[in-house]
Amino acid sequence: MAPAPLSDQLDIIIPTIRALDFLEQWRPFFQPYHLIIVQDGDPTKTISVPEGFDYELYNRNDIERILGDKAWCISFKDSACRCFGYMVSKKKYVYTIDDDCFVAKNPSGEDINALEQHIKNLLTPSTPDFFNTLYDPYAPGADFVRGYPFSMREGKPTAVSHGLWLNIPDYDAPTQMVKPTERNERYVDAVMTIPKGTLFPMCGMNLAFDRDAIGPAMYFGLMGEGQPWGRYDDMWAGWCVKKITDHLDLGVKTGLPYIWHSKASNPFVNLKKEYKGIFWQEEIIPFFQKLTLSPDNKDVFSCYLELAEKVRSGLGHLDPYFTKLADGMVAWIECWKKLNP
Amino acid sequence: MAPAPLSDQLDIIIPTIRALDFLEQWRPFFQPYHLIIVQDGDPTKTISVPEGFDYELYNRNDIERILGDKAWCISFKDSACRCFGYMVSKKKYVYTIDDDCFVAKNPSGEDINALEQHIKNLLTPSTPDFFNTLYDPYAPGADFVRGYPFSMREGKPTAVSHGLWLNIPDYDAPTQMVKPTERNERYVDAVMTIPKGTLFPMCGMNLAFDRDAIGPAMYFGLMGEGQPWGRYDDMWAGWCVKKITDHLDLGVKTGLPYIWHSKASNPFVNLKKEYKGIFWQEEIIPFFQKLTLSPDNKDVFSCYLELAEKVRSGLGHLDPYFTKLADGMVAWIECWKKLNP
Repeated sequence: MAPAPLSDQLDIIIPTIRALDFLEQWRPFFQPYHLIIVQDGDPTKTISVPEGFDYELYNRNDIERILGDKAWCISFKDSACRCFGYMVSKKKYVYTIDDDCFVAKNPSGEDINALEQHIKNLLTPSTPDFFNTLYDPYAPGADFVRGYPFSMREGKPTAVSHGLWLNIPDYDAPTQMVKPTERNERYVDAVMTIPKGTLFPMCGMNLAFDRDAIGPAMYFGLMGEGQPWGRYDDMWAGWCVKKITDHLDLGVKTGLPYIWHSKASNPFVNLKKEYKGIFWQEEIIPFFQKLTLSPDNKDVFSCYLELAEKVRSGLGHLDPYFTKLADGMVAWIECWKKLNP
Repeated sequence: MAPAPLSDQLDIIIPTIRALDFLEQWRPFFQPYHLIIVQDGDPTKTISVPEGFDYELYNRNDIERILGDKAWCISFKDSACRCFGYMVSKKKYVYTIDDDCFVAKNPSGEDINALEQHIKNLLTPSTPDFFNTLYDPYAPGADFVRGYPFSMREGKPTAVSHGLWLNIPDYDAPTQMVKPTERNERYVDAVMTIPKGTLFPMCGMNLAFDRDAIGPAMYFGLMGEGQPWGRYDDMWAGWCVKKITDHLDLGVKTGLPYIWHSKASNPFVNLKKEYKGIFWQEEIIPFFQKLTLSPDNKDVFSCYLELAEKVRSGLGHLDPYFTKLADGMVAWIECWKKLNP
């Protein structure tokens, strides 16, 4: 059997509070890879991992021990804790998936190897500067259409591959409440680059990225216990990442691969978590849209620290929380640098 | 039988040099609509139209008679002449299709009513300000995903619906030559808004638009006989239209519907037409990307005239042709206003 693509260069990061039975279904695709499991909640609980997987597991005690007085920058009782895994990985690429996500089928009824598609997405360029109407020009059977400038056809390196979800769509609590029975049954056979200058709602359920290129910007913020909001961890990371990839001339793709999202989370619990975010995002998104990064900042660390200071000065009026979040962003970078010297 | 949607508000514009036998296949979908046929080339030739269609036909003599000393702004011996049809239409919406485009089938094997999908696209809003990862949020079974600002969910009025092509893809001559056997077999079941600030290569083969909203910017330029380039008519219109829709807060969609594009045009002939454009687009596209329209210009006419002056001053160094094109843009607006008082 041929070795799995990039199995020595990619870690799979899974945040969880329960037995990882969902891995059984992924075994044919995930077993060649190293897993980093970030155990959330009570650290005295034991998380069982199906046999045969190569993994390391970190619980809250490990996070406290490793990060010491900066451990507060990693969220607790929220799947945002997964970003600790990004930091301790030593690989070039990272794939993160939720433990309620299973193998989806394509329209021909075949199992979708999500990770393989993410790797294809990451290893082929992005086209952020001009829109290609036939979608991914690097896909087999596709190309750039008439009128696409030849000088732009080399594309830009891809930093992020954002995968989608069949069955339970990633809706906010109000939409879940209004459309409790809605299921995503539309298999859209496309990968596309999100154009430069355009923000998007990045979901952390099925997400791969180039850790070397953009990892330090993949901070999932301060969510969960002791924090005023939740379910904005991946959104926060997405806004920051998109601004920085645009600035650094990197690409972000969305579309294939699909996973099968099995279970809707409780909309009442979600509403409580999202409540403030529903208001705040109305100001945060225009804030990010208008923001420009200094041309002096040419690497992800300096861009991220600039962003932290802009958050401090530009969003503090919304709530004192944003000052703390800016501190968290700085602490996160300090931890990243310490663990990745 | 229910009346065809918008049959009293939409004209179908067809540029042609030959018998319109292709209409037989479209009869179930097109017959309720009024056709405007723009006959290109020799005006003494008679174009036959299958029985039962309601149409008006304009040849070069008609164009000369109607536009008088400004008729030169309408291209001759090039399908760019179609834009004369946009000008003489009295309807709110326009659909234009090439006469080598036939009815495509969806993956279930059903005939695609392209016009019906275009009308759906035009009558539902666009979402140019933020990207929705599940594509068209107004499609049945879809919605806005978590993290999409609620204040943006009303969307913006849609001005353009850009449809795609199965079978022969819309490639430039070099790509046609390199990939002579490539066929587009990928049916991507999606409609999406092209984000604000992003240009795209607009193809005129299968295109619908709101004539009231954007018609005066749908000028297909000076192509064909006596002009230094061809096959950039729709591209030119696309660059102008996208800048103006962005400025006027209107939306442009691309994706469904597909038509079946039957026959590749001759790549050697195409290369001759495209030759200069391949160089010029490398400067024209950055020119359009950087260009901003004055906030004082709040309607499509004033925006288009501003664009004409920017073309004159900003692209004249490429070739004297662009000064003539700027004159053509002004003449086009004068003709439009005269015919649409």
